Amino acid sequence: MSDSTCPLCAATGGALVFQGEKFRVIRAMEAGFPAFYRVVWTAHVAEFSDLDPSDRALCMAAVCAVEQALREHLQPTKINLAALGNVVAHLHWHVIARFDWDSHFPAPVWSAPQRPVDLAAVAALAARLEDVDGTIERALSEMRAAW
Amino acid sequence: MSDSTCPLCAATGGALVFQGEKFRVIRAMEAGFPAFYRVVWTAHVAEFSDLDPSDRALCMAAVCAVEQALREHLQPTKINLAALGNVVAHLHWHVIARFDWDSHFPAPVWSAPQRPVDLAAVAALAARLEDVDGTIERALSEMRAAW
Repeated sequence: MSDSTCPLCAATGGALVFQGEKFRVIRAMEAGFPAFYRVVWTAHVAEFSDLDPSDRALCMAAVCAVEQALREHLQPTKINLAALGNVVAHLHWHVIARFDWDSHFPAPVWSAPQRPVDLAAVAALAARLEDVDGTIERALSEMRAAW
Repeated sequence: MSDSTCPLCAATGGALVFQGEKFRVIRAMEAGFPAFYRVVWTAHVAEFSDLDPSDRALCMAAVCAVEQALREHLQPTKINLAALGNVVAHLHWHVIARFDWDSHFPAPVWSAPQRPVDLAAVAALAARLEDVDGTIERALSEMRAAW
């Protein structure tokens, strides 16, 4: 179930952190928000409720594992979760670590910026993501073995 | 587990659609987006991963029931789901029916508007929400009985 016109069917969409059968996790590398991950469902479905209940549970377990890795390593001010898909209607969950110093906080990342990007803080945050990626990969590999 | 300074502990936060023990569903009545619902967790927790796995499943079943009622009655262009909480750090899920004619589509509702609000279309949409509310209330009452 894929769509030849869909960018999330055609390409990974970011730095691959974990590849499972039913979903992958990528690091999106959005400007100013290095700790921005996405859980991308493999099948081309538009809405969360298009999944059957066991796949919904698997999908949210993946989202939760990413959230927990971000909290463990980065102690963010807040986690932001979202499945929007207005532009790319292929199910993907944004999992974003937000910080009170980031350019948009407390507004959503899709809003107008509240202040300039703190380049030093962004670089320091980016330097810590290898550990986050490793924790996500291990957690989801263990989950796959148990699922 | 409540916080005296939290607006979602102190007040319903919108038109009450369903009141359960562990969560409620409200219609938010955001300007320009009448089909904007929220699943508000009762206990004052900040993050989705603060819930234990069975409560996460219950929470997402509620989110999914609201999504399905919106899809059934309104055939939206897209559903948007989000748990942000940067301003009010009390777990709540936004469940929003989006339409290609709405003021912000395809941008998120938190972004800059793309066009003026279509007052006639918004009013016509608002007139259909009583049925959505009823379907949500019935679905969650049945879920409560079975849970």
